Amino acid sequence: MHRATGSVGQRFVQLLDGHPWFRVVALTGADHRAGRAYGETCHWIFPEPMPTWAARLPVLPSSPEAVDCPLVFSALPADIARQVEPKFAHHGSLVCTNASAFRREPDVPVLLPEVNPEHASLVDVQRERHNWRGAIVANPNCTSTGMTVALKPLQDAFGLRRIFAVSLQALSGAGYPGVASLDVIDNVLPYVEGEEAKLEWEPRKMLGKLNGDTVSLGDFAVSAQANRVPVSDGHLVCLTVELREPAGVEAAHQALAAYHPPEISCDLPSAPHPAILVRDEQDRPQPRLDRLAGGGMTTVVGRLRPDPLFDFKMVVLSHNTVRGAAGGSIYNAELLVKLGLVAGA
Amino acid sequence: MHRATGSVGQRFVQLLDGHPWFRVVALTGADHRAGRAYGETCHWIFPEPMPTWAARLPVLPSSPEAVDCPLVFSALPADIARQVEPKFAHHGSLVCTNASAFRREPDVPVLLPEVNPEHASLVDVQRERHNWRGAIVANPNCTSTGMTVALKPLQDAFGLRRIFAVSLQALSGAGYPGVASLDVIDNVLPYVEGEEAKLEWEPRKMLGKLNGDTVSLGDFAVSAQANRVPVSDGHLVCLTVELREPAGVEAAHQALAAYHPPEISCDLPSAPHPAILVRDEQDRPQPRLDRLAGGGMTTVVGRLRPDPLFDFKMVVLSHNTVRGAAGGSIYNAELLVKLGLVAGA
Amino acid sequence: MHRATGSVGQRFVQLLDGHPWFRVVALTGADHRAGRAYGETCHWIFPEPMPTWAARLPVLPSSPEAVDCPLVFSALPADIARQVEPKFAHHGSLVCTNASAFRREPDVPVLLPEVNPEHASLVDVQRERHNWRGAIVANPNCTSTGMTVALKPLQDAFGLRRIFAVSLQALSGAGYPGVASLDVIDNVLPYVEGEEAKLEWEPRKMLGKLNGDTVSLGDFAVSAQANRVPVSDGHLVCLTVELREPAGVEAAHQALAAYHPPEISCDLPSAPHPAILVRDEQDRPQPRLDRLAGGGMTTVVGRLRPDPLFDFKMVVLSHNTVRGAAGGSIYNAELLVKLGLVAGA
Amino acid sequence: MHRATGSVGQRFVQLLDGHPWFRVVALTGADHRAGRAYGETCHWIFPEPMPTWAARLPVLPSSPEAVDCPLVFSALPADIARQVEPKFAHHGSLVCTNASAFRREPDVPVLLPEVNPEHASLVDVQRERHNWRGAIVANPNCTSTGMTVALKPLQDAFGLRRIFAVSLQALSGAGYPGVASLDVIDNVLPYVEGEEAKLEWEPRKMLGKLNGDTVSLGDFAVSAQANRVPVSDGHLVCLTVELREPAGVEAAHQALAAYHPPEISCDLPSAPHPAILVRDEQDRPQPRLDRLAGGGMTTVVGRLRPDPLFDFKMVVLSHNTVRGAAGGSIYNAELLVKLGLVAGA
Repeated sequence: MHRATGSVGQRFVQLLDGHPWFRVVALTGADHRAGRAYGETCHWIFPEPMPTWAARLPVLPSSPEAVDCPLVFSALPADIARQVEPKFAHHGSLVCTNASAFRREPDVPVLLPEVNPEHASLVDVQRERHNWRGAIVANPNCTSTGMTVALKPLQDAFGLRRIFAVSLQALSGAGYPGVASLDVIDNVLPYVEGEEAKLEWEPRKMLGKLNGDTVSLGDFAVSAQANRVPVSDGHLVCLTVELREPAGVEAAHQALAAYHPPEISCDLPSAPHPAILVRDEQDRPQPRLDRLAGGGMTTVVGRLRPDPLFDFKMVVLSHNTVRGAAGGSIYNAELLVKLGLVAGA
Repeated sequence: MHRATGSVGQRFVQLLDGHPWFRVVALTGADHRAGRAYGETCHWIFPEPMPTWAARLPVLPSSPEAVDCPLVFSALPADIARQVEPKFAHHGSLVCTNASAFRREPDVPVLLPEVNPEHASLVDVQRERHNWRGAIVANPNCTSTGMTVALKPLQDAFGLRRIFAVSLQALSGAGYPGVASLDVIDNVLPYVEGEEAKLEWEPRKMLGKLNGDTVSLGDFAVSAQANRVPVSDGHLVCLTVELREPAGVEAAHQALAAYHPPEISCDLPSAPHPAILVRDEQDRPQPRLDRLAGGGMTTVVGRLRPDPLFDFKMVVLSHNTVRGAAGGSIYNAELLVKLGLVAGA
Repeated sequence: MHRATGSVGQRFVQLLDGHPWFRVVALTGADHRAGRAYGETCHWIFPEPMPTWAARLPVLPSSPEAVDCPLVFSALPADIARQVEPKFAHHGSLVCTNASAFRREPDVPVLLPEVNPEHASLVDVQRERHNWRGAIVANPNCTSTGMTVALKPLQDAFGLRRIFAVSLQALSGAGYPGVASLDVIDNVLPYVEGEEAKLEWEPRKMLGKLNGDTVSLGDFAVSAQANRVPVSDGHLVCLTVELREPAGVEAAHQALAAYHPPEISCDLPSAPHPAILVRDEQDRPQPRLDRLAGGGMTTVVGRLRPDPLFDFKMVVLSHNTVRGAAGGSIYNAELLVKLGLVAGA
Repeated sequence: MHRATGSVGQRFVQLLDGHPWFRVVALTGADHRAGRAYGETCHWIFPEPMPTWAARLPVLPSSPEAVDCPLVFSALPADIARQVEPKFAHHGSLVCTNASAFRREPDVPVLLPEVNPEHASLVDVQRERHNWRGAIVANPNCTSTGMTVALKPLQDAFGLRRIFAVSLQALSGAGYPGVASLDVIDNVLPYVEGEEAKLEWEPRKMLGKLNGDTVSLGDFAVSAQANRVPVSDGHLVCLTVELREPAGVEAAHQALAAYHPPEISCDLPSAPHPAILVRDEQDRPQPRLDRLAGGGMTTVVGRLRPDPLFDFKMVVLSHNTVRGAAGGSIYNAELLVKLGLVAGA
């Protein structure tokens, strides 16, 4: 697993501990850490102790020569991912990545199993085009994740036209050490680098239609503003939604509450139960109270209410380092195994 | 001054200390405090010490029999304001109030001197209709305040059509003790009681046109979502703006930066300099860094950037207990004095 | 269970959900809540949902006429506890209480099963003296708890002479709504009402020797300063320890790490494993990382280092609403059942 | 001024803006910043804007060849200070430094003008020994500062024997970016690197007696524990004090409240008025409410109360980057000018 020492990398280690299908055999890290034991070089940030198997693994460099695995999880920074991930795909590894480097490639699926599992077939397009035995499969940005899951049932039922999204994002989304404490004490930051462009584009790819070897972007538009707030985990997004076929709050509530993901994604080990939880209290979801719903994999929706301009407003919460990062990649990998796309699995 | 013991009441006391035009002669408070010295019964929440003149004043009940003043500031809760304020207006006091009780009355101006000083003429309508010697003049909700100031130059230059507003509001907006610390540690609350309806209506009244003895609501629509964040002071609002006459970010920036309030409001003691401050850094305004601009009376705007759906996005910050509450009422009173609407002043 | 609607009361409900020995049959609350379902009148503050059995129970008044149980847990405020708890003890209930009302009564044990289970025999003294069928058994103050557990092995091995204790206490120790958010944002409070006197006396009772029907206070002195910090759960105490028989850091470390509680307390359902966890990192224990050790029942000790004045310094962390409140009472009740002191159990 | 780009360096720039005696002619920074304008390379962290004179100054390297001034303020890291500061002293500059590098040198005064101005005469010893025209004068650690000021009147009146000190230190003490936000959200850290040794030694030097060309350490002992808390500015220290000549709380209160610093230090521009402020409320001092007393230069003391082990307890608050860092160095420089120890001033 790549860049296992960062905050997302640590979440991977935590979530893969005791995984029924996967066993971690190698951890990689930045060059200056290579050669040391993971337990010695990693500043572990979670309350739960580091798994002992991980503590003992040596940190390796991120090269196919050092790491030869059918399945690779990547928490690499985007610029390094751009160099490294294709080498692994070429070498035969299926790379499930958090990095944004290849999300805009037409043949790289941006995958949420409860939303667009059919996009996984782009793996074959990719293999043919590049003559790779492996492939690269991306999960979306952590903030895109929750809002896309919540928009899916609405698109299915009514079609989407226009979406306004304003996020209140947690500190862990910036990694560790990330945001300086002096910057967020008694404060919020109305800026998250590069985030708004992702929120305005990624949902359109994920909710777009697969046409043979490419995806047509979803026929709706998103406007996004991103903020950082002093919360450890859990991204909140305030959404205002305009549908193609107008619908009221009750119909939207019903569509969300009754959402059943595609059958193939439902019985995977990391599948959230429920995929979407609709809360009816007027002050929920809240990050501290709702981020661990469904083990951090459930998307929590609340505050559905009418809107004077569009059809309705709602608030969405998703755990940014579980569903929105490491847990999302693992869920993707499970889907790919089930689809027979991982060599030797 | 009414309900001087609460958080807004204390801000009134602080801002009126040494005011060049006004001298506080009476403070009122809840019945169980009446008769005690202000300094003994008030839990003072500011770093700066309580003014000694205030500490010595007795707390009086909020009735015209106990308090006979030409000018009255009110920080009463809405339900009590509804009972008490008309009695004072009838008795001859000009009541500058923070309470929301009468904002929707057609003859009560909701006043921001740098935006709509001409609405002050509703005072005469009110006096005639009720046969009052005094009057009630409201300042808007603390979150409405900043966004309305920022929208004014845009309405003047381009006309407004539709506005999306999502707020990140400070704790002091909920008064003291207000929000429980356990509710906001490592958390945000996606709900502020009664707030969204105010944000969707008040700007339309303030930016509406005075037609004889009434105000036509502004011909635009607002959609609002309100959140509470762990910040002591300073309400941040993320706005997306659709204009009547399309304009780009540069033209909007210029209109905002060049805004000059109506002449009559510019040389009042509490007039902010500048009325609007436009910041060009990509991560400003921020509550902790920008809330005290212009002594807390300036509206700070930043992050102007294009929007895929409307004309542009921007972020507005306003100090909620200074410009958005006590300071706003005082600024209103100064305007009313200058207009000759305060008896004996 | 008494006063089940407060923050400690809710913790009782949570910890008793699925308890192997106890089943909750009645919940009481303040008079204005009586008659309503617990699920309707209680503002539930935990992320985990309220147990459904609890939601359905009616809230009863706290009187023996309304509630007739062999075992009663009490989270009552001290002044009400003083009135109510003896009635229940007289009526036949064994009252395991968090309230401080009777801790200084010579025949009321202040009980920590891993420290002084032998003090439970005061129950018989109490019964005889008052002619009660029930009894009152107290757990100590939440801050006393952790420090007393950590001092016990040191007293056993070396004897205690003098202790300096400075606490950094969590918000939940003040109940809900408790501390106002405006009081602790960007702040700490160097004052917790009534706390220091408890920290200077309670450890001496718990570490005192049982002599027939009374306890001789431990022959050591404690000096305490209490602070409130913006942390949700977990009380940290900085201790400096002077022993009777001088010992260095290594000997103290060994005594703490090897501590084995009295046999009778070890296999109870709520017994912490380990009772004491010694951490060797230079920056641990920390509230957010260590408060849930042993399910919140383990006392975590760290930063043992030499002291220029006394024998050594150390830092102790204990979960204030689990080990230090509800969990402590339940652990006490388990001990009392095992000792045959609960009627009908 | 050295290392003007860090958090203490910025505080220097802010406090020297408009200083009646000093004019900043040069700013230095890390090598990678050299040559750029201060306004471009410095991430300014204060709400008040950067002074325009500072924004225009070029950032220079920290060498006497580049910077030739009679007076130099240093906010250098200790390891660099150890190399650089003697060069400046040799070259003729009087270096007022925050760095800890030379505090333990026998001929370097650790100076607090309201405590030990007579130690300034070590400058002559230093000059003679090293054949320097300049000199190095240190201010103490930010946490040592407040506690030493508060101990001074007690030493004068009663003598000191033993002190227990536990600190709750602000984030800004760790510089910028300093502490990661994820490390202190809903948390405190019971560890500040290197701090405790300083707190146990520095007060003894400052309260020690000058004997010719050396200082005899004060004849008392200090035990310290240091904690980091989520507060922006203001270090709080809980002290327990054993005097040589026993005294009660009232006598201690009187000694503190009546403290008058040595005459020579009283009318300097940065002299705090009062030097010590004693607050009588049971919950003060608090960082957010009291850190700006006397412009951040006053030491605030409160919560004097009897102690079961020593004479009494008290709580001390001092602004760590004003009185405890930049403001302290400037105050020292003013004293040295008045004493005629700065060349050409």
